[in-house]
Amino acid sequence: MKQTLLLLPGDGIGPEVTAAAQRICQLVAPDVAIEEDLVGGASIDKHGVPLTAAALDRAKSVDAILLGAVGGPKWTDVARDKRPEAGLLGLRKGLDVFANLRPAYCFGALVDASSLKRDRVEGLDIMIVRELTSGVYFGEPRGIETDANGVRRGFDMSVYTAPEVERVTRVALEIARGRTGRVCSVDKANVMESGQFWREEVTTVHKTHGDGVELSHMLADACAMELVRAPKQFDVILADNLFGDLLSDAAAMLTGSIGMLPSASLGTEGTPGLFEPVHGSAPDIAGQGIANPCAAILSLEMALRWSLARPDAADRIMAAVGRALEAGARTRDLGGDLSTTAMTDAIIDCL
Amino acid sequence: MKQTLLLLPGDGIGPEVTAAAQRICQLVAPDVAIEEDLVGGASIDKHGVPLTAAALDRAKSVDAILLGAVGGPKWTDVARDKRPEAGLLGLRKGLDVFANLRPAYCFGALVDASSLKRDRVEGLDIMIVRELTSGVYFGEPRGIETDANGVRRGFDMSVYTAPEVERVTRVALEIARGRTGRVCSVDKANVMESGQFWREEVTTVHKTHGDGVELSHMLADACAMELVRAPKQFDVILADNLFGDLLSDAAAMLTGSIGMLPSASLGTEGTPGLFEPVHGSAPDIAGQGIANPCAAILSLEMALRWSLARPDAADRIMAAVGRALEAGARTRDLGGDLSTTAMTDAIIDCL
Ligand SMILES: CC(C)[C@H](C(=O)O)[C@@H](O)C(=O)O
Ligand SMILES: CC(C)[C@H](C(=O)O)[C@@H](O)C(=O)O
Repeated sequence: MKQTLLLLPGDGIGPEVTAAAQRICQLVAPDVAIEEDLVGGASIDKHGVPLTAAALDRAKSVDAILLGAVGGPKWTDVARDKRPEAGLLGLRKGLDVFANLRPAYCFGALVDASSLKRDRVEGLDIMIVRELTSGVYFGEPRGIETDANGVRRGFDMSVYTAPEVERVTRVALEIARGRTGRVCSVDKANVMESGQFWREEVTTVHKTHGDGVELSHMLADACAMELVRAPKQFDVILADNLFGDLLSDAAAMLTGSIGMLPSASLGTEGTPGLFEPVHGSAPDIAGQGIANPCAAILSLEMALRWSLARPDAADRIMAAVGRALEAGARTRDLGGDLSTTAMTDAIIDCL
Repeated sequence: MKQTLLLLPGDGIGPEVTAAAQRICQLVAPDVAIEEDLVGGASIDKHGVPLTAAALDRAKSVDAILLGAVGGPKWTDVARDKRPEAGLLGLRKGLDVFANLRPAYCFGALVDASSLKRDRVEGLDIMIVRELTSGVYFGEPRGIETDANGVRRGFDMSVYTAPEVERVTRVALEIARGRTGRVCSVDKANVMESGQFWREEVTTVHKTHGDGVELSHMLADACAMELVRAPKQFDVILADNLFGDLLSDAAAMLTGSIGMLPSASLGTEGTPGLFEPVHGSAPDIAGQGIANPCAAILSLEMALRWSLARPDAADRIMAAVGRALEAGARTRDLGGDLSTTAMTDAIIDCL
């Protein structure tokens, strides 16, 4: 059966970088059908909401979704559930893609672009597995209110259930098995009840499903520090939605440019994965044709590997990006002057 | 009236580093009376609780408190409210020290100890102002329970009231005024209601109390990334309890060694401040006499400056630590081989 990839270009540089990935897809997997729909600000402008029910239904029906980025200054002065980001959160929740995979690896040619000294990042290869559909992002109750004494307050519930922790832990364990076999689970068990619960559940799941995988635990503040001090100590990092958000951004920057890093968000077997660059919509450079397309292209690489079962096509992309960088191809964020199109051309030349 | 400094050495390397700070205090402020009491595991072993009511009362009655560190493997297998950390949280809450000041500066002599390249950290001078007595650390309800359907879950409430945000924002604005006059407030306003509320309140407080101070806002994930990419862009960072915990640990590591960094926790005018190293109890090296005493000595420096109104004594300590480092004095964490005592001697020689 023909496979379908749904493009959701979104806002800002989203359309520019997904167009680049689309070109690559047509070359390495020409038989994959490509469709397109709206999300984020682009959807607000056309339909008044950041994600329509029709767009979500369509996303559920395809094999994989490649999203560009959402958000921008144009849509910030409205209620949070009407903003572009709500479209992204609705998509994650609607697709039930609970396991967000964020690799942090440093292409050999880019080691010197890192803020960190060469020895700290050369050969770096971390996989962050972040829970993506629960925690404080979705917990209830939440709101802003004035209490009986006239005091205003804002509040959110940070909550995890056992099945939620179990399923993402199993993904992390499975992924570690295909790597060096170590999972470091992150929490604030010394302060948060949900953190204590997270640690207990991860430990329990590891006992029954952790064959061959070594499990350790680290406090989130210590992990933020260790990522700067000695990042190569990590193999797989398992974190909840909020800690995973901060730690994966810090880890992304270790590799030199956020413009390089892809992500995959996976649900249960047989449901479509959602693939997106770690970078945002970068409104400051949108429309100029200078965005780095690598994160989107590598997100396509992850789509081919994780949802479309085409590891060969994925390997081709990975190798081509590496070779293009070795040959000196660089967009501005990497200190070069190639346009988005020229960078994509350089990668295509290396396919 | 005679001023009193209460030492709470605590656990692990705590007693070793507070002893070093005590020697310095007797030299630069010999008229300050020094008392001592128990907190953390040390208090559990003697009294069965990590902080007695008597110890808290005593802390409330002095002018400043210098705490070493709490915690260790000996006390981890008990309920969270019986652990050493609960003593620290109880002390913070009991003293109502809502503003935690964590400087991240890099002594010139230590620039090369950082994981980051020289140009990224040379001249680095950040002050993180972290809210310390509210947020998810203390929010209610919280717990671990089995719901009506038999599903286990762990939960915590992340909550801020307007007065809580206001008072810590005013401290951040005041501190910025004595520096380069910029405050960057950090939140996840795009995802959390309490984050949205935090941003609105900080903006409001800035309007009435922010004369001469420039306020900006940054998402917490972006801040984690920017601290690695270009840390020198920051002057004062204002964050809630949880984000401040992670971000200050990451910032601490930029400066080379967590063994160098002090913190001050301040309450309302006229109440005693709590001063402690950012580092923990380091059970792995406890009792060996090799811990770096600088963070404790610099915490004393902050106590003299912020609670005891002795800026000259504080300046003397700061200069002496700088000179000792210039002269090559280094404990193991800094790549040298001085013992805790020898490092303290080296600093005393430079007073
Ligand atoms: C845009 C925002 C809602 C999102 C998040 O916080 O999850 C982003 O930071 C990310 O990490 O994908
Ligand atoms: C020990 C722990 C409870 C504490 C915290 O989380 O606040 C520590 O990490 C700190 O930052 O002082």
